[in-house]
Amino acid sequence: LVSVLSAAIIVYRLPWTWKCSKLLMKFIHAGLNTIAMILAIVSMVAVFEFHNAKNIPNMYSLHSWIGLTAVIFYCLQLFLGFAVFLLPFAPVHLRAVLMPIHVYSGLTIFATVIATALMGITEKLIFSLKSPAYSASPPEATFVNCLGLLLVIFGSLILWMASRPHWKRPPEENAKVLRPIGETPEGTEVESTMTNSSNVDKPDLRINSEAARKQNLKFDEAGQRSTM
Amino acid sequence: LVSVLSAAIIVYRLPWTWKCSKLLMKFIHAGLNTIAMILAIVSMVAVFEFHNAKNIPNMYSLHSWIGLTAVIFYCLQLFLGFAVFLLPFAPVHLRAVLMPIHVYSGLTIFATVIATALMGITEKLIFSLKSPAYSASPPEATFVNCLGLLLVIFGSLILWMASRPHWKRPPEENAKVLRPIGETPEGTEVESTMTNSSNVDKPDLRINSEAARKQNLKFDEAGQRSTM
Repeated sequence: LVSVLSAAIIVYRLPWTWKCSKLLMKFIHAGLNTIAMILAIVSMVAVFEFHNAKNIPNMYSLHSWIGLTAVIFYCLQLFLGFAVFLLPFAPVHLRAVLMPIHVYSGLTIFATVIATALMGITEKLIFSLKSPAYSASPPEATFVNCLGLLLVIFGSLILWMASRPHWKRPPEENAKVLRPIGETPEGTEVESTMTNSSNVDKPDLRINSEAARKQNLKFDEAGQRSTM
Repeated sequence: LVSVLSAAIIVYRLPWTWKCSKLLMKFIHAGLNTIAMILAIVSMVAVFEFHNAKNIPNMYSLHSWIGLTAVIFYCLQLFLGFAVFLLPFAPVHLRAVLMPIHVYSGLTIFATVIATALMGITEKLIFSLKSPAYSASPPEATFVNCLGLLLVIFGSLILWMASRPHWKRPPEENAKVLRPIGETPEGTEVESTMTNSSNVDKPDLRINSEAARKQNLKFDEAGQRSTM
């Protein structure tokens, strides 16, 4: 589940996908997330059936509360993403507004899923290791602790890749791909806004560049990735 | 600990601090982080003494492994931040390179501390609640689960505030504050780089703005916040 989620997150950062059209990249992103949602729901059903079979109460632990919250938000995120970014009905303005929220909540859900996994590992180790107990550090405990540490390192790496601006898909490639199929290329959008905001009468480069800087900050954050 | 860490993270995002000089803001940031480090070390010593007094083994759980890793990285982060960003010896170039790493590792350590706290809460609930057990959902368990959920919501809000580019300290304010005391204002640095990169011979705005956009992306990420 975590690896499919990770692949879905970093698909926009992988150089081989830059050769794909933006639409194909979005389908890969949406497809991987759909697989992850199905896996999450199947595993939740399995947990409930396991609990019922062993007469263990459901949904009592913090692990289950945070896990269920994460799954609910993940489903919301997926349906909202599908409706706004994949279906062709949402206006570019709405996409630009929702994109930073979509990116933030995606990464936050990913971090929450890792925290939930760590809580689940802790619970499992405490409940399963009885003789010798978890506190006696049997080899299984050390092994699973190492897996937990690796999970944290792995999650950190994914968040590092997803938050580097220079690992973002280059916009030129995208404009080139988009132009022939008659869509509005994103470069034009940024450019026209900048033309409006830059003061053409004054040759003071500082004002222009300062205004452009602010515009760009906004568009780098949101608009650039939100056109279809 | 989490609240002091949070205050240290968002101090650069609070409008009232924008009126302070950048140096004062850095002192607040460094001071709060130093308080958090002292609290972390005091609480770790308390845990070891509690374990020794109760004959509980030390450092066997995943909670302790990840917690200790987070504290070690936090101390490294603090000393590196002190040496590079607070002491006046590091060159601007080095600061610009290290700033994105400093920001990323600070936020990652913060998220890891929250995950560690959640694991600690899970352990404590399992070990402390015996009759009725945690799985019977006594009121204490529900109450502490709610606290854990609130901790996740609180952490998400802090990460949201820390990652919004338009909540960043405005650069104009900073340039105004810095100029009188004879430092290099960051605006000038961004501007001079943009003048070099923009092609003055060609009046094609797209090329200029595209080059400027890339430069800005870089400077917004790193250089802007790294001058003293």
